[in-house]
Amino acid sequence: MSRPKLQDVAAHAGVSVTTVSRVLNNRGYLSDDIRRRVDDAVTALGYRPNEIARSLIGQRSTLVGLIVPTVADPFFGELATHVEGALAESGYKMLLCDCHDTPEREERYLDLLQGNRVDGIISSTHNRDVAGYGRADLPIVAIDRRLSEGIPTVHSDNRTGGLLAAEHLISRGSRSPVHITATDHPGNARAAAYREVMDRHGLEPRVMAYGYDTPVDRRRAAIETWLTLNPADGVFASDDLTALMALDWARKTGRRVPDDLRIVGYDGAAALRMAVPGLTTVRQPIERMAARAVDLLRARMADATLTEVEEEPLPVELLQGWTS
Amino acid sequence: MSRPKLQDVAAHAGVSVTTVSRVLNNRGYLSDDIRRRVDDAVTALGYRPNEIARSLIGQRSTLVGLIVPTVADPFFGELATHVEGALAESGYKMLLCDCHDTPEREERYLDLLQGNRVDGIISSTHNRDVAGYGRADLPIVAIDRRLSEGIPTVHSDNRTGGLLAAEHLISRGSRSPVHITATDHPGNARAAAYREVMDRHGLEPRVMAYGYDTPVDRRRAAIETWLTLNPADGVFASDDLTALMALDWARKTGRRVPDDLRIVGYDGAAALRMAVPGLTTVRQPIERMAARAVDLLRARMADATLTEVEEEPLPVELLQGWTS
Repeated sequence: MSRPKLQDVAAHAGVSVTTVSRVLNNRGYLSDDIRRRVDDAVTALGYRPNEIARSLIGQRSTLVGLIVPTVADPFFGELATHVEGALAESGYKMLLCDCHDTPEREERYLDLLQGNRVDGIISSTHNRDVAGYGRADLPIVAIDRRLSEGIPTVHSDNRTGGLLAAEHLISRGSRSPVHITATDHPGNARAAAYREVMDRHGLEPRVMAYGYDTPVDRRRAAIETWLTLNPADGVFASDDLTALMALDWARKTGRRVPDDLRIVGYDGAAALRMAVPGLTTVRQPIERMAARAVDLLRARMADATLTEVEEEPLPVELLQGWTS
Repeated sequence: MSRPKLQDVAAHAGVSVTTVSRVLNNRGYLSDDIRRRVDDAVTALGYRPNEIARSLIGQRSTLVGLIVPTVADPFFGELATHVEGALAESGYKMLLCDCHDTPEREERYLDLLQGNRVDGIISSTHNRDVAGYGRADLPIVAIDRRLSEGIPTVHSDNRTGGLLAAEHLISRGSRSPVHITATDHPGNARAAAYREVMDRHGLEPRVMAYGYDTPVDRRRAAIETWLTLNPADGVFASDDLTALMALDWARKTGRRVPDDLRIVGYDGAAALRMAVPGLTTVRQPIERMAARAVDLLRARMADATLTEVEEEPLPVELLQGWTS
């Protein structure tokens, strides 16, 4: 009888060849039952993997892919810097997968990264309905987004951030602050916190959502139109660039900031802090988020059986400037 | 007699083993004379390279390394987005090498990229005295910096940019504009253009150089001190973030912009245009610079004998906002 092949093990265990390969290479998420059946088949048949092929297959690429909407955005640029730095310290190189803000690219990158056998993926995008994450068979960590069952998410404390921003506006005298955000869905913790604070103070919450896909010029026009038609004495924007659009509208229309309009942004990326240090903002701990994502990914790359996905949110802080 | 080895070819040709390897793999810059001597030695000895090893060595990684100061800076973030996009279109993946603004990291990345056999490198950094580029034996293209003999540089028209900025300030009524830049060295075409325009108008040029290595807080303090001690009615800053520091100083000290102080920045990265659309700036064609760098690199990866390094500068444009 010839030496047993991978196909024989798969047939004996009643699973696919791919599954056998995953068990042997300890990749992906596998139930204990599957592992046991494959192990039993290996033992029963006396299967010995081709060591050279196996070493090639099992070889670590020391490559990690980072998927982001675009590093042209200062928040994601800063995130990429810190992810890259933390990976470099651990001996990993980073493939930058810049989605140019489109979901199609994200799907393509996900396939590409798996085809190139990166050791893991860190993903931080806005795109919804990218199905590939659920099918991926390598370690993945998400930043600020729930990708799929079993994938841990690193995030900062969006609820506290929303509470801080809304309470701050009201403490500064605002009685009709609006919340401007990309999408107002049930999972949006910042918007929920804003509504909670408004309710607590007996004020009417108003959320202006412009949609992630809106091009910059149209986003600006939509926000300016809203602010013109719906008088507000405060703006809590869900990112700093949007807050700065409100600031520019105030300048153009002669509103005094903060007397007529108090403005609070979100994120606190260093480049925009440097550009407009006076903008009040809720700063996310970008470097800590990056470091935590790399730590979680390393743990999963070392032990593919890890399934813990609950993550304590990292703390945020409100930085007050002259805009509020 | 045993089969001839690489060492025998090298001894016969009177060159190093590395040089023989480069000729056989068509990598790096080699004179016709060297190529001929190696070819003759190969023929004379009947040398046949180990085909398996050679296929491994000659294998394309389809990886390109991008070395930048940091993608947390909006200009380099935008550059990285476009370099990545142009590489992806050509079937290449991009390793992001973010120097976190330190020369030590740049040297390390250069070694790392060569050790990992990337197919080529695109480098855009401020660091001086990084010796590794001269020794590197793979295709390299520089953006806005002369790295070493034989390495082509893509750049936009810094001289015209400097002329546009300085002439604009004077046309807007400024009689004592200062040029603020990182380093004021003889190769700084923007500073030279500023001086040329000042001379042409019989005005005294003043250049304030703060040094690339200056941390942000100290840079801001140095610029504010200079502006306080040296009255100026105009600022031509060599990048937009520095221009915005001057704008913030004017706000804090009650200067009216543009009546008391006209301000012009440089670069025009989209994120800062979005943040402060009113800042007058000289916009570099960042996407075209990225595409041109990728084109040049692809040409060199296809033909390592290319030595043409002269590049026409790409055009810039002045965008006027309310700061001037």
